Amino acid sequence: MSMDSFLLDGQLRRFLEEDLEHGDITTDAIFDQETASARFVARQPLVACGMEQVAARVFCLLGGQLEFGQMAADGSRKDSGDVLLTVKGPVRTLLRGERVALNLVQRLCGIATLTARFVDQVQGLPVRIVDTRKTTPGLRMLEKYAVRCGGGGNHRYSLSDGVLVKDNHIAACGSISAAVERLRGRIPHTVKIEVECDTPAQVEQCLVCEVEIIMLDNMDTATMTEAVQRINGQALVEASGGVNLETVRAIAETGVDIISIGGLTHSAPAVDIGMDWI
Amino acid sequence: MSMDSFLLDGQLRRFLEEDLEHGDITTDAIFDQETASARFVARQPLVACGMEQVAARVFCLLGGQLEFGQMAADGSRKDSGDVLLTVKGPVRTLLRGERVALNLVQRLCGIATLTARFVDQVQGLPVRIVDTRKTTPGLRMLEKYAVRCGGGGNHRYSLSDGVLVKDNHIAACGSISAAVERLRGRIPHTVKIEVECDTPAQVEQCLVCEVEIIMLDNMDTATMTEAVQRINGQALVEASGGVNLETVRAIAETGVDIISIGGLTHSAPAVDIGMDWI
Amino acid sequence: MSMDSFLLDGQLRRFLEEDLEHGDITTDAIFDQETASARFVARQPLVACGMEQVAARVFCLLGGQLEFGQMAADGSRKDSGDVLLTVKGPVRTLLRGERVALNLVQRLCGIATLTARFVDQVQGLPVRIVDTRKTTPGLRMLEKYAVRCGGGGNHRYSLSDGVLVKDNHIAACGSISAAVERLRGRIPHTVKIEVECDTPAQVEQCLVCEVEIIMLDNMDTATMTEAVQRINGQALVEASGGVNLETVRAIAETGVDIISIGGLTHSAPAVDIGMDWI
Amino acid sequence: MSMDSFLLDGQLRRFLEEDLEHGDITTDAIFDQETASARFVARQPLVACGMEQVAARVFCLLGGQLEFGQMAADGSRKDSGDVLLTVKGPVRTLLRGERVALNLVQRLCGIATLTARFVDQVQGLPVRIVDTRKTTPGLRMLEKYAVRCGGGGNHRYSLSDGVLVKDNHIAACGSISAAVERLRGRIPHTVKIEVECDTPAQVEQCLVCEVEIIMLDNMDTATMTEAVQRINGQALVEASGGVNLETVRAIAETGVDIISIGGLTHSAPAVDIGMDWI
Amino acid sequence: MSMDSFLLDGQLRRFLEEDLEHGDITTDAIFDQETASARFVARQPLVACGMEQVAARVFCLLGGQLEFGQMAADGSRKDSGDVLLTVKGPVRTLLRGERVALNLVQRLCGIATLTARFVDQVQGLPVRIVDTRKTTPGLRMLEKYAVRCGGGGNHRYSLSDGVLVKDNHIAACGSISAAVERLRGRIPHTVKIEVECDTPAQVEQCLVCEVEIIMLDNMDTATMTEAVQRINGQALVEASGGVNLETVRAIAETGVDIISIGGLTHSAPAVDIGMDWI
Amino acid sequence: MSMDSFLLDGQLRRFLEEDLEHGDITTDAIFDQETASARFVARQPLVACGMEQVAARVFCLLGGQLEFGQMAADGSRKDSGDVLLTVKGPVRTLLRGERVALNLVQRLCGIATLTARFVDQVQGLPVRIVDTRKTTPGLRMLEKYAVRCGGGGNHRYSLSDGVLVKDNHIAACGSISAAVERLRGRIPHTVKIEVECDTPAQVEQCLVCEVEIIMLDNMDTATMTEAVQRINGQALVEASGGVNLETVRAIAETGVDIISIGGLTHSAPAVDIGMDWI
Repeated sequence: MSMDSFLLDGQLRRFLEEDLEHGDITTDAIFDQETASARFVARQPLVACGMEQVAARVFCLLGGQLEFGQMAADGSRKDSGDVLLTVKGPVRTLLRGERVALNLVQRLCGIATLTARFVDQVQGLPVRIVDTRKTTPGLRMLEKYAVRCGGGGNHRYSLSDGVLVKDNHIAACGSISAAVERLRGRIPHTVKIEVECDTPAQVEQCLVCEVEIIMLDNMDTATMTEAVQRINGQALVEASGGVNLETVRAIAETGVDIISIGGLTHSAPAVDIGMDWI
Repeated sequence: MSMDSFLLDGQLRRFLEEDLEHGDITTDAIFDQETASARFVARQPLVACGMEQVAARVFCLLGGQLEFGQMAADGSRKDSGDVLLTVKGPVRTLLRGERVALNLVQRLCGIATLTARFVDQVQGLPVRIVDTRKTTPGLRMLEKYAVRCGGGGNHRYSLSDGVLVKDNHIAACGSISAAVERLRGRIPHTVKIEVECDTPAQVEQCLVCEVEIIMLDNMDTATMTEAVQRINGQALVEASGGVNLETVRAIAETGVDIISIGGLTHSAPAVDIGMDWI
Repeated sequence: MSMDSFLLDGQLRRFLEEDLEHGDITTDAIFDQETASARFVARQPLVACGMEQVAARVFCLLGGQLEFGQMAADGSRKDSGDVLLTVKGPVRTLLRGERVALNLVQRLCGIATLTARFVDQVQGLPVRIVDTRKTTPGLRMLEKYAVRCGGGGNHRYSLSDGVLVKDNHIAACGSISAAVERLRGRIPHTVKIEVECDTPAQVEQCLVCEVEIIMLDNMDTATMTEAVQRINGQALVEASGGVNLETVRAIAETGVDIISIGGLTHSAPAVDIGMDWI
Repeated sequence: MSMDSFLLDGQLRRFLEEDLEHGDITTDAIFDQETASARFVARQPLVACGMEQVAARVFCLLGGQLEFGQMAADGSRKDSGDVLLTVKGPVRTLLRGERVALNLVQRLCGIATLTARFVDQVQGLPVRIVDTRKTTPGLRMLEKYAVRCGGGGNHRYSLSDGVLVKDNHIAACGSISAAVERLRGRIPHTVKIEVECDTPAQVEQCLVCEVEIIMLDNMDTATMTEAVQRINGQALVEASGGVNLETVRAIAETGVDIISIGGLTHSAPAVDIGMDWI
Repeated sequence: MSMDSFLLDGQLRRFLEEDLEHGDITTDAIFDQETASARFVARQPLVACGMEQVAARVFCLLGGQLEFGQMAADGSRKDSGDVLLTVKGPVRTLLRGERVALNLVQRLCGIATLTARFVDQVQGLPVRIVDTRKTTPGLRMLEKYAVRCGGGGNHRYSLSDGVLVKDNHIAACGSISAAVERLRGRIPHTVKIEVECDTPAQVEQCLVCEVEIIMLDNMDTATMTEAVQRINGQALVEASGGVNLETVRAIAETGVDIISIGGLTHSAPAVDIGMDWI
Repeated sequence: MSMDSFLLDGQLRRFLEEDLEHGDITTDAIFDQETASARFVARQPLVACGMEQVAARVFCLLGGQLEFGQMAADGSRKDSGDVLLTVKGPVRTLLRGERVALNLVQRLCGIATLTARFVDQVQGLPVRIVDTRKTTPGLRMLEKYAVRCGGGGNHRYSLSDGVLVKDNHIAACGSISAAVERLRGRIPHTVKIEVECDTPAQVEQCLVCEVEIIMLDNMDTATMTEAVQRINGQALVEASGGVNLETVRAIAETGVDIISIGGLTHSAPAVDIGMDWI
């Protein structure tokens, strides 16, 4: 499991530039060529994400001779006190990069950890927990990767790579069938059509239009169960809205194929990770 | 209260490019030149942030003729159901920009709202609630503005505009006095020196070195009270670590001048805001 | 039919910078504030593409007061001598932008025109002519739009928005079934799986794996016809390889759903368009 | 013969970003750390261009340990079946970079090959085949290099590095002499003045103005021959317009010094090159 | 006389970003929506450069409603106390842009003013004062324009648009003739060859090679006079090295065509211009 | 003493792109794979700045195998004839990078050298010579570093990292006290407030407002001496305006803490450094 480093570097550079502006005036005044060793330590149980491709890479971009020891594998479960990363290098590089590296991995591990909790809740059921486009602006690639590290899957990445007809589309266009008709023949044949439904009547329309994915939005579990039975394999069924750790298993038990959860990315609390000198 | 639009546009463009990639295939296939009116509605009580400079600007960047009606003032308190923004323009622009605009203002209003809760907790006390550098990578300017909208203040922005000698600096350098000595004469005279202290002994050293700001890190309130009395106005006193809505008032009552809270930006839950057609 | 201007401007700017480098030394030395009127004229029959969003926009980016008269609609068929665009503005802007504007629309109209010839060849048959990723580096968004202007459709845009298992994937992975198995559960549920097949045996494997799109690569029409009958609606069928204006109708008559043609973008000859003063 | 790698990398990165968007979902799902060896093979006779600085560099930018074996020298003539490049490295890198590398070298070798055909046609005559500014937007540096690989030369690169007074300049300015007069003293002394002439009368004016290069635009060979004799070494003579493989030798025999051909870059068909696993 | 605004904006933005970093904390804290009027006043005699395209543009980029009154024409001579620019607009915009605008125009007017002094010194002689590539990195387009505003001309802009064989080229290559031989046929026919000569013997070699421009580098005026007579119109003659306001007329009187002076750009003292509220 | 290379590379690249545009046509035509050794030699006494991080880095960015020998330490004093840098590498890299490297280090050493002359003038006095924001647009980080190499200090870097209430702020706001009142509570507690004073009355107001730094702008030394005595350690005192090598010692003797000099960066003459083949 990994991300494309080629695509990450530009982002990491921008994050460093944001925190460095014209340089680290504290560190530059105090230190010269000293080297040190440091480790990233989990201060709570978590699912690891980004030690190699994010944290270590941040230090590498800042330059100087660096040696990395341990690196927690992406997706591995760690306990409080576990070492996630060890690095030896110039003090100036370590202190310069510390905050950006921590800000990133605390957030990514937070998302992976929350995702894993949802996945654990639905263990044994044939359902997939996925994210949404409710990601932090500028961090989508990283956050969607963190969801995968937590055992989840990804919904479409952007407005470009998936078709989702939402309530506002339907309202502005007039009807589901009108919207779907315009889509057929205009979108690439490689992409499925998904429609957001608030009511059983809309589900019926989707079936008439032979939509490939039907999203049941904010339905109660009874309505969802009926919808799943009515759809009966003619489309993938996705549940969305009002999903939390308490409700997710009941939703999964309705038989839906996919449960999408915006909170995986917009509300995952950052986990606590510290950088200590060795 | 406002941000520098000149500095924001580049960021907003990147966020739109992230969500658009090569275009909105759903909206482009369904709509042509239709126009519509929409409003952003608070679905919970919140402190407003970013309606004009972020949400409205996102739509402007996408182009087309746009008219804005209401715009909740930054820093204003709003109830569930209140309208935060109304916009009339091309359906394509509204649907393209919806997610990016919402992702941003939900997060920013979340930070402003949480900050306001902390500020409310210390009402009447001569203390200032401030943020840290634990912001979301790429969003620092926006998030620090949201803290101000919530009634808080800002700590240093980056490694460039403030000196903070932290535990790792002290450990690597040997002592507080060694670090401060190297700083004097090397940093601009316009910047104050702040040192992070874990113990009363370190506070003593700071006083000897005539440090301008002393951070009391993770001390209990009894120790903090003593430190404040010992410092006795010779330096600004900042409390940090373990601050939450339950503990903040007690910390403020120790007499510290500033309380810095990483959680304002790294853990503020996004508030719920929806975009509805009018 | 249109492209997202928000996404185009950065590209058009780069193209202008390439041709301007540090300025137009000829025009700057000869002209000052003079204005003129010019028109783009088709010097051969063609399908129009890009007059408003590309050619006119190029002039707008260069600045000055501009008035546009006629603009040939994207996708409209024009004869030799037809006026495609009229523009009035500063001589310096018109001469500076002429070459970049022409270089772009000659290429885009060329692609639209070639696409239309293929589409004409298969008139009446239930098949769709689509492009590939064999586009000019840096021009994909524009070229894929030109294909749509010519009446064609788009295959996946990039490596991100569609799954295509090609010969080299199969060889490196061992088998179609091994590849598809790894894909299931790792790719977004919004994306279809397509597999490139060179033989009827591979088509059989695809059917076993329930692949959504089967590409018949470089097969003769007899083999294709058999494959279409064997697949019998269980997957979309795409023909690829060796498609030209002579062969395309016979290929379409095999019953395939989609015919993808790299030559639409990599080998469409530029059409002849001139810019004349009025 | 080579290009400046320093200037190429930014372009190659953009081309990769265009094709990768947020990653290669097919390859990432199927492969992990596997390595493989591949070769680029000419599927038709061609003049090589870009194996080292373009194709190999594309793979290098994507990262991972790579070994290159053969690399066809730029400008060398190759037959169908000849190996142009061999590379060993991560499967993920090879599959990610394949399309961008091929799209580029197929086009560049196409231009080099077409240029060589023109150069062959005029063998033995003291004339130089050169390109124009009718290049693909965004690819000028690469395409002009390909022309040199094919044995041609380059006309001016951009509007900045050469003066060319064209028909539209003359029309807007009033006369050749008026245009040249304004140019003298305003352009760098390092640059020659070239004027496009449609008639013998215009050639006369150029001689009066002591223009350094006279372009004979779209003249028949008889008129050109007369013009060359009239000019008689007082200026470099360039032929332009209506040049193709059938006409080029007759044009060269008129005695012109330079023949410029837009079709070298705007209409060179891509050559067929494949990437095969070894 | 003007520059290409299209090419300038990106530079001006970067300069503003350098000075603003994350915002103007002084001005933002003190002012809100106040407006004011300001003028740029010459505090010494100078040649104007950049009021419209640089100073006014800087304010425009920062946004807000702006009105400009007087703007000193580029190249006009102004006395101490003359108003160069008047602007009315938001206080925040005026204070934010003041320093960047002044830093630029003080430098540009300084270059224009120094150039004019050199041009004045050679009045009546058929010689042209030109700049070199010894410009401030990042400011070449602006500085070369300032030279033109002062009545000078431009030498080549970059390594791309002119050929100059310098001492280090000759030393590394072996001889002038070897260098020129390699250049013939490889460089565009639109570009002249210039060779730097330290001795009369090298001038002889240049004449043999039919070099178009001969640079006499650091020669005394007697040697220069002889060289000019020897060259006798077979090449343009450029004097370079050791040129200052005292020596320039004597150098011009040797009969050289061009005098290039690095000091025009690398050592022109900034002129004094102030921004005052009206 | 060093700069942050991470932050420099983007700038150096842009400077190289400015000088290279599409390549070095002279060097590319003459040389192939030849290597050579060169040295940078001081042609006048100077304080060294930028040999490693600027000059050597410029060559590294251009690529090829490079070996560096001597590198003058930043801040070291060198005589005419001293070698500042030796480098061995491809002739093409050395000739391509020569001008950009020299343009930069001649300017930076010029600033360091001038700064050192000011610092020498005030030897023995407890005062600090600092720069201003009157730097060359685009070169601030480099020029402020050069000031430090010359023994000076830095004033605030940008509008973001220091508060300076200037005459135009006071005029637009009404009074010093009004301005300072608005600043208190709005700016980060880490930043000091500095106010520019033209008169003793303004100094009084600053003392009332408890401003941390008082700038005495363009005062005569008698007035300054009185002001210093009046301030009596209640604020840092900075002298500004009319400072030159003749006046600086007298100003320092007034007892001010800091002397800021715009001329350090806007008017330091470039020093003479040459690149010679070895």
